[in-house]
Amino acid sequence: MSKTVRVVENILSANDRIAARNRGLLDKSKVVAVNIMASPGAGKTSTILATFERLKQDGIRLGIIEGDLASSIDADKAIAQGIPAVQINTGCCCHLESHEMQEALDQMPLDEIDLLVVENVGNLVCPTWWNLGEHLRVLIASVPEGDDKPYKYPVMYKGVDAVIINKTDLLPYIDFNMDYFKEGVEILNPGLVTFPISAKTGEGMDAWVEWLKTAIAETHEAGTPASAD
Amino acid sequence: MSKTVRVVENILSANDRIAARNRGLLDKSKVVAVNIMASPGAGKTSTILATFERLKQDGIRLGIIEGDLASSIDADKAIAQGIPAVQINTGCCCHLESHEMQEALDQMPLDEIDLLVVENVGNLVCPTWWNLGEHLRVLIASVPEGDDKPYKYPVMYKGVDAVIINKTDLLPYIDFNMDYFKEGVEILNPGLVTFPISAKTGEGMDAWVEWLKTAIAETHEAGTPASAD
Repeated sequence: MSKTVRVVENILSANDRIAARNRGLLDKSKVVAVNIMASPGAGKTSTILATFERLKQDGIRLGIIEGDLASSIDADKAIAQGIPAVQINTGCCCHLESHEMQEALDQMPLDEIDLLVVENVGNLVCPTWWNLGEHLRVLIASVPEGDDKPYKYPVMYKGVDAVIINKTDLLPYIDFNMDYFKEGVEILNPGLVTFPISAKTGEGMDAWVEWLKTAIAETHEAGTPASAD
Repeated sequence: MSKTVRVVENILSANDRIAARNRGLLDKSKVVAVNIMASPGAGKTSTILATFERLKQDGIRLGIIEGDLASSIDADKAIAQGIPAVQINTGCCCHLESHEMQEALDQMPLDEIDLLVVENVGNLVCPTWWNLGEHLRVLIASVPEGDDKPYKYPVMYKGVDAVIINKTDLLPYIDFNMDYFKEGVEILNPGLVTFPISAKTGEGMDAWVEWLKTAIAETHEAGTPASAD
């Protein structure tokens, strides 16, 4: 085994130890954390904000950690909605790591939050390797990206608890075979639930939000939530 | 300096040495290499194929190296066009490295190629760090990704020679402020040329193809092409 491989393993192992601490902190405050991953421009922020609007009506208390290379564009949008938000700027790094999550959690009013969303850096590959201590992982795909993405980016599709297919409002203008896409997901992650939605028009949002509410409730009931692995 | 940082520097340095060899090999055969980078689903393959159709009419001899985590979907499309193609499957790796380019070059009929396109793995962050020995770097953005991408993924925009803005056919259906997008590009990379195009309808393709042909000619005339850095 090369020196390089050993170092990478050590880094991931250190990441996992901090992730376990993050999980303990979340569980102590009865916060369910969801790690949202996607390509750049799949509509992570708009989907999250549309989801928040619905969850707020059910009295669910929300918080968000925003991961971006640069800028606070996304955190500013959440704050405008009255949601506690922490922005992490990774600089040149293409994914969030657990030590960044740890620092963000220190700034979060965890006892006043039921659901904490972590919006990862836009990237269909790297974020999947880095456990942050979250309970659930959700991938947001989008219609304009094309129906071949599960076949071309299999690693991400294997490691998530649900897939949202956003921007269904663009289906009339794009060649996108929903059955072909879903078949790819099924091959990689049998039984995985998929939610075709449009964050813009609201189409399909009900089913996704119901699933999320059930997942939050089940995670709470479980007491000791399932591993994020 | 930590052990980890030293190891990463050593890896990048080794990558640069192989990239320099690749460049030498390309120059010896008078091949101009263009590294195409983009988010997943921005339309790299369809833009490249539409570009190839036009360049073939001018007698320019083409080749392509396809980088994907998995599958040979893209290489198959190029081969169907009669283009020499080598598929690199990176497995779990989010970018191409110079040693992969080197192995692909070994399989390419370089003496029968004028323009070699390298289609990188879909990723707006990592590929920018890895010099492959290419002469030119082009980023393909796309309208559905949103007009805020230069502000959120600045590293990639700083390191390229041109930006294509694909899928302009979707402008009527999406909130996308072209001026805001271009202002972001100008801040990061003053004077950088941008090409709004639709690979689907052909809109804007002429200007992009003319720029590419001029860049190919200039690289040939220069004899010792400019550094890819």
